[in-house]
Amino acid sequence: MASYGGIDLGGTKIQAVIVDEENTVLGSARRPTPTSGGPEDVAREMAVALRDAAKAAELGVGGDLKNLAGIGVGSPGTIEDGKVSSARNLPGWEGTFALADVLSKELGAEVRVGNDVQVATDAEFKLGAGRLYDALLGVFWGTGVGGGLILDGKPWTGRGAAGEIGHMVVKIDGARCTCGRQGCMEAYAGRAAMEEHARKLHEKGRHTDLFKLMKERERTRLTSGIWARALEHEDELAIEIIDRAVWALGAGVASAINLLDVEAVIIGGGLGVRLGHPYAKRIAKAMQPHLFADERPPHVHVAALGDLGGAIGAALLCRS
Amino acid sequence: MASYGGIDLGGTKIQAVIVDEENTVLGSARRPTPTSGGPEDVAREMAVALRDAAKAAELGVGGDLKNLAGIGVGSPGTIEDGKVSSARNLPGWEGTFALADVLSKELGAEVRVGNDVQVATDAEFKLGAGRLYDALLGVFWGTGVGGGLILDGKPWTGRGAAGEIGHMVVKIDGARCTCGRQGCMEAYAGRAAMEEHARKLHEKGRHTDLFKLMKERERTRLTSGIWARALEHEDELAIEIIDRAVWALGAGVASAINLLDVEAVIIGGGLGVRLGHPYAKRIAKAMQPHLFADERPPHVHVAALGDLGGAIGAALLCRS
Repeated sequence: MASYGGIDLGGTKIQAVIVDEENTVLGSARRPTPTSGGPEDVAREMAVALRDAAKAAELGVGGDLKNLAGIGVGSPGTIEDGKVSSARNLPGWEGTFALADVLSKELGAEVRVGNDVQVATDAEFKLGAGRLYDALLGVFWGTGVGGGLILDGKPWTGRGAAGEIGHMVVKIDGARCTCGRQGCMEAYAGRAAMEEHARKLHEKGRHTDLFKLMKERERTRLTSGIWARALEHEDELAIEIIDRAVWALGAGVASAINLLDVEAVIIGGGLGVRLGHPYAKRIAKAMQPHLFADERPPHVHVAALGDLGGAIGAALLCRS
Repeated sequence: MASYGGIDLGGTKIQAVIVDEENTVLGSARRPTPTSGGPEDVAREMAVALRDAAKAAELGVGGDLKNLAGIGVGSPGTIEDGKVSSARNLPGWEGTFALADVLSKELGAEVRVGNDVQVATDAEFKLGAGRLYDALLGVFWGTGVGGGLILDGKPWTGRGAAGEIGHMVVKIDGARCTCGRQGCMEAYAGRAAMEEHARKLHEKGRHTDLFKLMKERERTRLTSGIWARALEHEDELAIEIIDRAVWALGAGVASAINLLDVEAVIIGGGLGVRLGHPYAKRIAKAMQPHLFADERPPHVHVAALGDLGGAIGAALLCRS
């Protein structure tokens, strides 16, 4: 049976998996995304992550990956023919980098690159929480808030840039977003914006254990795990900022549903998966007052493939 | 050559047309939508409008419409098998009414009913300003703000309620909408909401000629024509409220583009058509700061079929 590699390239971490033809995960590995350097450095870490996953799968000992039938990559930025441009959340990646070619040479297998959010949505649609539906919206609540669409059983990508649900305007003239615009859903609900907001309020004297937890765990960012822990500790500021994120997600996702009327919403991403069902329920509740067809809300599920969905979806790119 | 009837049932007016097989308009007629009574009264006025259009087309003298190969209706509300339910903007239409059957008996031809906004979008896609595109968003700026979607060359209706662009949230906790919710785009940009807003400010002492113009023209509502006239007169309150509508349309339509990345936006509806190109340009400009892929904005056009688009689109329902 053939094996495939899948790499999910995120702003915070690189997740790699090896799967078999039935999409069973044979091995996985994770590395932090470099925060400095450039695309070459990121590509190098991606190769290391995939080799580690192959080792965990007991494949290709010593880095020989010749058994892999193909490698898929889910990447942020604009993707064309295996090249990635303007990947905002990655270091020094303002220009265009031939990611597929570089990785292919390094790893000795064919490499295909797709949009990170779209491959994760596709994985949930084909293998995860979206299996029962024909039309759905994937909401990836992490560093930013990404959206993926399946309409009529097929991915909808528009002219290549569809799914920017995080930059739907939920409050005109509202909070400044990390993209530079104002009032975007991501300005309230993206992990990066939430961290910035928490830091400002903390510097102004608001008490919170968020940054203490960050130091204890030797992190440089408020990861999803730190937010989850702070909520468990009933940290008031964390509760307030997460509530605000849920409030924004409710309006933004409901707006998308009012426009598209799809059957289901799948909540993934670092925060979405980490906070899980109770928060998916809270988002569904926050959507309700904004839904036009409120007698028939969409089904709301947590991404069933969890943290590995992006990498598993990337591996699906090699199958067609 | 066969002829077809088309009726656009709006909250303010009933527009009827007779078209030939090539969609050339042979005759048209318009009547105000009854503001009291119930569905039977509305259906009666629809029949009168269609007979008037037939007379104008020199067809069916004396009401004999046997030459018509079919009649299509574009209606608000929920539509199923020729029955219309919950048509909010029509008098006494909270329940379900067998509109196709009643009109068919009255007019002696087969009647098909479709969603008003969707048939108007389809007309622009097939015959009007959307002819060159494969994916577009129709924005009908009138009493409310309706949306119609063409994706991959086909109407997208979701589970039957897609296109409610007027109820996308542009300002959480913002202005009260006529639908009862808060912060919807329609709460700022719908003609009904704009009239209510103007009335409140006028009652509080703000000067405006809007209501004087309404009386002079013997209207009971601030029609699109009255708004256009007040703008020509540089009525300050009218300018302010229209500016606010453009501001809300900019954010809401841009949000829809960020999600769907379609090629074009077609602006129709009573206000959209009446205010025309200069305002379509202003809406495009108001969208720009909110567009995520701002280097490549969608094309923005005024509906080319103008006021008759809905009725022509309704007549298209008889062709399949």
